[in-house]
Amino acid sequence: MATFSAKLVSVEPGRVEISAPVGANCLQQHGFGHAALTFGIGDSAAGYAALSVMPLETEVLTSEMKIHLLAPARGDMLHAIGRVIKTGKRLVIVQADVFACTGSDRSHIAFLTGTMIPVSATSKA
Amino acid sequence: MATFSAKLVSVEPGRVEISAPVGANCLQQHGFGHAALTFGIGDSAAGYAALSVMPLETEVLTSEMKIHLLAPARGDMLHAIGRVIKTGKRLVIVQADVFACTGSDRSHIAFLTGTMIPVSATSKA
Amino acid sequence: MATFSAKLVSVEPGRVEISAPVGANCLQQHGFGHAALTFGIGDSAAGYAALSVMPLETEVLTSEMKIHLLAPARGDMLHAIGRVIKTGKRLVIVQADVFACTGSDRSHIAFLTGTMIPVSATSKA
Amino acid sequence: MATFSAKLVSVEPGRVEISAPVGANCLQQHGFGHAALTFGIGDSAAGYAALSVMPLETEVLTSEMKIHLLAPARGDMLHAIGRVIKTGKRLVIVQADVFACTGSDRSHIAFLTGTMIPVSATSKA
Repeated sequence: MATFSAKLVSVEPGRVEISAPVGANCLQQHGFGHAALTFGIGDSAAGYAALSVMPLETEVLTSEMKIHLLAPARGDMLHAIGRVIKTGKRLVIVQADVFACTGSDRSHIAFLTGTMIPVSATSKA
Repeated sequence: MATFSAKLVSVEPGRVEISAPVGANCLQQHGFGHAALTFGIGDSAAGYAALSVMPLETEVLTSEMKIHLLAPARGDMLHAIGRVIKTGKRLVIVQADVFACTGSDRSHIAFLTGTMIPVSATSKA
Repeated sequence: MATFSAKLVSVEPGRVEISAPVGANCLQQHGFGHAALTFGIGDSAAGYAALSVMPLETEVLTSEMKIHLLAPARGDMLHAIGRVIKTGKRLVIVQADVFACTGSDRSHIAFLTGTMIPVSATSKA
Repeated sequence: MATFSAKLVSVEPGRVEISAPVGANCLQQHGFGHAALTFGIGDSAAGYAALSVMPLETEVLTSEMKIHLLAPARGDMLHAIGRVIKTGKRLVIVQADVFACTGSDRSHIAFLTGTMIPVSATSKA
């Protein structure tokens, strides 16, 4: 999260919101920097949503993620809402929506669907 | 590309290789920074591969992209190979493989498949 | 639609519901027949949703589609709801949810996201 | 497989080929029946490829699958090659290519990437 200066906005079981400023180092030539930033924010929201339904000491890894980019990431802030679709022992199916915000304007710029794998934090160390 | 300090390694029609150092600002807690960096490199290689078969003055935008993350992005450098699968007037179907490299060791860490949209550079301005 | 004996249940601009019986010829060994039937119903609902926002004489083709299979397709009927996420001249971004129904019970068995391409029906002929 | 009258053409560890006739009941209005048939053949080849690297008594289920449809499924036969990209305890990452064949002509009509879940055949019963 530190790379993107992202912040948790709200956490409920199976639903997490995060936001991040669109920093100068992300304002690339169209398509590239934006896509990675938008992907990173959406993937992160989806991952935190998965974590919100896991036992303590569990972490999650992204196995696969598909992103549809709907509009350019124009705005001061990106806002992402991650949700859990299905929780299993071996997999958590997730989705996320990403919005670009300028003042009170908000446009839907991306949605993601993916598969997270729970990993024991202790077994990883 | 500047965000990732990425460099073009080779360009042929329909096939582009790029590489980028794994910088300290990308070494996040597992899964997050890595995923966005890996996505960004793979998406970029795929986009340049699409560009390599387009007329001059054309740019491309990512419409959708799916990434499978196969292994952690451990290494000094990331290396990505983008390829065009199918070229059309309205869409270019692409894929990319991403490798993490340390010295002469190379491991396959991700593959991506996606859809690029050609955009006239002049009509955009 | 005839292959699946599917029927249109409701049509609104950007939202279409269809249903189909789970016929004996689709009750395969787990995973295979079900997956193709579930895919077919979901893809069809998504395609009809795209058509519902297109001009007359336009048809649509599926360019790419991702399906998450959440549960086995157990039930008498499959029910699918397709929705348009974004309409463009060159692409329509769609999603669909598929449910398996037995009597009044309904379980969410799949969701799909994809890209449809509008095609002039006359230019095809 | 019976639904599609599909046959195993070759099996090696991590690579399986199958073929199926394009039957009259699959020759639908463009895009629909073709997409489900093409998906079914490709998903099946990918699933058999996953099975080919699993212990006996293990079965596999498709968790998610993305298909890119590159060309119409015109031909007498469909031919699919499934390959394993990565094998894990909890997941098998797979891909498949689908070809339409008429006599000795062969065109690449689709490729798929997806996630299979190994399931103990005995625990399922």
